[in-house]
Amino acid sequence: MDFKNQLENYRLRAEKALNIWMPQATELPHRLHKAMRYSLEAGGKRLRPILVLATFDLNPSHLDPEPAAAAIEALHTYTLIHDDLPCMDDSDLRRGKPTCHKQFDEATALLAGDGLLTEAFYLLARAYKHSPSVAVALIETLGDNAGSRKLIGGQQEDTLGEMQGNDEHRLNFIHQNKTAALLTACVKMGALLGDSSSHIEHADVLGYNLGMAFQIIDDILDATADTATLGKTAGLDEKNNTLTFPKLYGIEESRKRASHHTKSAIDSAKALGGERSTFLVELILSMEHRIN
Amino acid sequence: MDFKNQLENYRLRAEKALNIWMPQATELPHRLHKAMRYSLEAGGKRLRPILVLATFDLNPSHLDPEPAAAAIEALHTYTLIHDDLPCMDDSDLRRGKPTCHKQFDEATALLAGDGLLTEAFYLLARAYKHSPSVAVALIETLGDNAGSRKLIGGQQEDTLGEMQGNDEHRLNFIHQNKTAALLTACVKMGALLGDSSSHIEHADVLGYNLGMAFQIIDDILDATADTATLGKTAGLDEKNNTLTFPKLYGIEESRKRASHHTKSAIDSAKALGGERSTFLVELILSMEHRIN
Repeated sequence: MDFKNQLENYRLRAEKALNIWMPQATELPHRLHKAMRYSLEAGGKRLRPILVLATFDLNPSHLDPEPAAAAIEALHTYTLIHDDLPCMDDSDLRRGKPTCHKQFDEATALLAGDGLLTEAFYLLARAYKHSPSVAVALIETLGDNAGSRKLIGGQQEDTLGEMQGNDEHRLNFIHQNKTAALLTACVKMGALLGDSSSHIEHADVLGYNLGMAFQIIDDILDATADTATLGKTAGLDEKNNTLTFPKLYGIEESRKRASHHTKSAIDSAKALGGERSTFLVELILSMEHRIN
Repeated sequence: MDFKNQLENYRLRAEKALNIWMPQATELPHRLHKAMRYSLEAGGKRLRPILVLATFDLNPSHLDPEPAAAAIEALHTYTLIHDDLPCMDDSDLRRGKPTCHKQFDEATALLAGDGLLTEAFYLLARAYKHSPSVAVALIETLGDNAGSRKLIGGQQEDTLGEMQGNDEHRLNFIHQNKTAALLTACVKMGALLGDSSSHIEHADVLGYNLGMAFQIIDDILDATADTATLGKTAGLDEKNNTLTFPKLYGIEESRKRASHHTKSAIDSAKALGGERSTFLVELILSMEHRIN
């Protein structure tokens, strides 16, 4: 199967897993569950669940990685809903559709985010309770990376900037935590579910480098692409005076760093999966060379 | 030890557990962790962690129930922070002190709530990973009761009322989910940590009845006590046109129902703990006869 077909195959499995494992819109209270489903079904590349599935496939086991893929996407979706709220980024649109609080209301969006966050952990416990050591390792990994010291802390610093005055330190803190932490959780959870757990340190290094490359490219695209290509408003970082890699190091040096992190991520993918790493290596390369 | 001393003893253990297990205010980002600590340390009766510890003591095991007690209080505190936000109850004061978003800001309060919710699950995984079956059962119990179908669903219905027109059904839905679900999680987690797990169905019945009695008394106090005795503004339910037990059934019938649920809760406590249930029975009785 070529890369594009395999990617689409993984994406469909991620969507199917969400549909199976998340609460139905018909459950009470309807408005709350409709809001959760609305944001889950708003599209997106499903990069995070695909990373869980693809990392699992480096050394597959008898376990089913799909519930973990759904849990990670639920958690990612909660961060988007809460980040879009008026007290955070105050965004009206996401992927061309009204944000959750615009489509429903602020209270429902707040609670829908809380519901998806809770559901992520609940699902991991439910789905993997017959392999309790794996379940606990997955939950600890997600709790660590999505907690107040990492993902939420990165969001706090990005929004409220208490480290201002030390730009390099601050930029690294934000990107490591806001972006790389959850991508690290994805590859680590995929590795924990598979037979890669004896090489789990490669998953940490892979996640970190993948996350840093991803965020640097994000910054470069915001500064260089046009809105039509990007599919979202370009130039927002400049407008909002956001600290970015291009601002701190220039475009050329930023590209070099993205390329360096990409190479390191590929090395870790190969260390984890050997010959089975072809798809993951192509995915990592495609993330560096994406145009939106 | 008499009841009051034992209650104080449990309360101090709950506070100590929070202090040990929750992130320190000195961790980065400081403002986020200060906000989490501010709300955790704002006082309160610590009823939920005390229930975990007291239910554990009905049939103690070699496990330490204190991390679970801290996790439950972290989860409870997140619900208070998010419920106080402007898009929910828009409260300026809680227990006589500024609410989290008033003391800090809305973005910090939102993220502090997210952080405490995540920390609850992370702590259960970290603290009990060497007893992975217990850890997963605790996390599944908390995820179930604190999820969008129960705790968050009760909050959604209380705030947005999609079931209006069927008052009896609606009132039961709100109180079972908004209040009783988390109290059920407390006693069930205490029982799972102890040697009560073969009688876990008693914990479910205990939690349900305790929760219903607790909420009915809450409704009665709001309608009958004065603000000075209550320590918070009395009469808010009437003012906000909130659906309550006294409104639907009258004060006398509400008291009867609270008494009935209290008796059932005591029966379950005795079925779980036999002679060791003295403290828990007194605690349940004190909840029925409380004046604030």
